[in-house]
Amino acid sequence: MVIYERPVRMEDIDAAGIVFFPRFFVYAFEAMEHFVNDVPGRHLELFTKERIGFPVVRAACDYRVPLRYGDVIRMAISVTKIGTTSCSFRYDITRVPDGADVATVEHVVVATDLKTLTKIPLPDDIRSLLGAHLIT
Amino acid sequence: MVIYERPVRMEDIDAAGIVFFPRFFVYAFEAMEHFVNDVPGRHLELFTKERIGFPVVRAACDYRVPLRYGDVIRMAISVTKIGTTSCSFRYDITRVPDGADVATVEHVVVATDLKTLTKIPLPDDIRSLLGAHLIT
Amino acid sequence: MVIYERPVRMEDIDAAGIVFFPRFFVYAFEAMEHFVNDVPGRHLELFTKERIGFPVVRAACDYRVPLRYGDVIRMAISVTKIGTTSCSFRYDITRVPDGADVATVEHVVVATDLKTLTKIPLPDDIRSLLGAHLIT
Amino acid sequence: MVIYERPVRMEDIDAAGIVFFPRFFVYAFEAMEHFVNDVPGRHLELFTKERIGFPVVRAACDYRVPLRYGDVIRMAISVTKIGTTSCSFRYDITRVPDGADVATVEHVVVATDLKTLTKIPLPDDIRSLLGAHLIT
Repeated sequence: MVIYERPVRMEDIDAAGIVFFPRFFVYAFEAMEHFVNDVPGRHLELFTKERIGFPVVRAACDYRVPLRYGDVIRMAISVTKIGTTSCSFRYDITRVPDGADVATVEHVVVATDLKTLTKIPLPDDIRSLLGAHLIT
Repeated sequence: MVIYERPVRMEDIDAAGIVFFPRFFVYAFEAMEHFVNDVPGRHLELFTKERIGFPVVRAACDYRVPLRYGDVIRMAISVTKIGTTSCSFRYDITRVPDGADVATVEHVVVATDLKTLTKIPLPDDIRSLLGAHLIT
Repeated sequence: MVIYERPVRMEDIDAAGIVFFPRFFVYAFEAMEHFVNDVPGRHLELFTKERIGFPVVRAACDYRVPLRYGDVIRMAISVTKIGTTSCSFRYDITRVPDGADVATVEHVVVATDLKTLTKIPLPDDIRSLLGAHLIT
Repeated sequence: MVIYERPVRMEDIDAAGIVFFPRFFVYAFEAMEHFVNDVPGRHLELFTKERIGFPVVRAACDYRVPLRYGDVIRMAISVTKIGTTSCSFRYDITRVPDGADVATVEHVVVATDLKTLTKIPLPDDIRSLLGAHLIT
């Protein structure tokens, strides 16, 4: 399990005064970047140099507690499935410091050649990293 | 079934040159607003005057075809479930004009008193509107 | 002068309940797209087929009246300067229907080859269009 | 002078593959928050407890070098003017690590009672903080 923390920012808030629900998926993307950056800069290197990205083919979120400006979230990142070209992540989101159970995001990403937008096998180092955090 | 169309905008695009996946949930929100605005201005009236909103408790999307700047999407809005305080929407997204099957978004919203953030029964007119578009 | 109208959307609002100030520049971009689309689809054609874009080299906004969710804005688009490779736009923003004087955005854009990110002369049809709306 | 650093994120990028120009104003807002948080949590405390915010009445940016996904920016924050209710900030943005001169953002903010949206004198501690970073 890998941990990613970030504050709720002004631009995340909607007219109801709470985080606009699509923003949780932005948080999930950032958390995945953070996960891949177990070797610092690895996500950028894949993206920019090797032209490999991880587009999402399925994403879902359950929302339990609304978030407000200034809240800090803690995302516990797990891997729930590893395929040949795809993998599944789960992000258990709690609020810091009170530990409130805020939301769970899940998404499935596919290793993709960004030049052709076709799927490719997961890079070896990413597969190893995923394996180290697979929960069963 | 209600139809909502909108263009893919510059700000929807990410560094891979395709629509950033959280944006599909922004599209879903806009489509729901459009649905509620069967009586023009009704969503705003609920939100601003009656202080009733529809926060999302679950959202999911399946992504099949990537979208690019300038694409136009057509969202076919259906109601899949009506509860006492909540309801479920499905948005079948195709690309105009070729009809490509782009994505399906589903979300569950809960009628909510925005002053207290507590759930309330669906307003009568909204319940009727939902019923007219319920698919089984 | 060309007119562009659009509603204030949920995602435009910040934690203070008013439009987050950077969003006015998103509105300006949309208005410029609308202006270039005097021939429908022209902005997209330039961008996608001819790989010509109009990056901003200077942008400024004066804010006078805060906007809220559900407000509708009317942007009056003028051209204030036409150079060889660049031009300047002004957007006078009022609120519909009361005509409140909301804000003025100005920005300078440069015709740019998107493959090389180098500046190029303004395309002839765009130069003509700009000329038709130049104020002095 | 106070320094704020942050990476260019996936959502900051537009269809031209560079940071969408309105995002620089989001960066400026974050930098101002960081500045006010000289006492950690002070911006949030003002906003949430005292209901004091700093809406922008004027904002401007000069853009010199386009930014791409993965770039890191360094914002040098200065105060250029202190009034009774308002103050002016300048953010000199360079790219890390090569020091490229990317952009300059300036904005004027007004201390505001968020309940009534009326201007108020700058809080004393904020005035002192501003004074410590005033350039002439």
